[in-house]
Amino acid sequence: MDTWDAIRARRNVRAFSDRPIAGEDLHLILEAGRRAPSARNTQPWDFVVVAERARLVQLAGVWQGAGHIAHSAATIAIVAPNATDPRQVGLIQFDLGQASMVMAIAAADLGIGSGHAAVADQDLARSLLGFPDTHHLAFLLALGYPADRPLVPLKRMDRRSFEDVVHRERW
Amino acid sequence: MDTWDAIRARRNVRAFSDRPIAGEDLHLILEAGRRAPSARNTQPWDFVVVAERARLVQLAGVWQGAGHIAHSAATIAIVAPNATDPRQVGLIQFDLGQASMVMAIAAADLGIGSGHAAVADQDLARSLLGFPDTHHLAFLLALGYPADRPLVPLKRMDRRSFEDVVHRERW
Repeated sequence: MDTWDAIRARRNVRAFSDRPIAGEDLHLILEAGRRAPSARNTQPWDFVVVAERARLVQLAGVWQGAGHIAHSAATIAIVAPNATDPRQVGLIQFDLGQASMVMAIAAADLGIGSGHAAVADQDLARSLLGFPDTHHLAFLLALGYPADRPLVPLKRMDRRSFEDVVHRERW
Repeated sequence: MDTWDAIRARRNVRAFSDRPIAGEDLHLILEAGRRAPSARNTQPWDFVVVAERARLVQLAGVWQGAGHIAHSAATIAIVAPNATDPRQVGLIQFDLGQASMVMAIAAADLGIGSGHAAVADQDLARSLLGFPDTHHLAFLLALGYPADRPLVPLKRMDRRSFEDVVHRERW
């Protein structure tokens, strides 16, 4: 797909069809995330790919808004190193956002929808995913073909207007 | 450009040619950022586009690592609302990372390089950009055509290996 089409076709998908994601497509999505930029190239992420249904159903319990994880074709669990310094925490979060976004765009390019979830229950997450105490589950990115309609470039989205968001030279 | 090529062509660019960025290309890059997803669709960003040379030179003073801003064809100043709750701060940073990444990909698709800078001197940033006290300058995204060589899909990057980053079902 053309890049501009993929960017405009990406939307938040939380209802997925039963169609599985081909292994090579999942690989491309993860490879896109692996290539993401980060502060001083620290690459503060590990990706745990979950595709077993039983585990997805349990993983949906880590946050009240994560119900869609249970029905995803696969979910990428974005695990990050713990940090206490607020500046460091902020940089890591920014970099996780970068990695997440490029994976969502790579997915959209393949017609695959994506939908984020936050995480509240770190103990449940750790018991399911087995990451070390030095890390936490930062976000989940659910993937799957949309249940409703294919991804196509959206003419308009529910966003603030261009004129409201963009300033020239000064606010 | 094909999406996968644009994703692989994006690299950190900090030395820019004198070639200006066409207005419609800058518009596309900003439009990509405007469409980015965010927690509860809060869209916690304003983009101040700086292209006047004198202002770019001054803006480069907001951080010791921001020297490349002075020589950029244009820089997008990503301004965000202040927040004190650590969870809220983290969500905003994540969303800014998403907006920044999609703008970098949209730029790469047009052959335009991008390079981040952090911000230390908020007072200088505010005096130059005029954003209100309720906001801060979170990041800068410098844009321009690369001085060294055009953007082409990179075969390999300085990153952790796929096998190191990606885990299956469990860490």
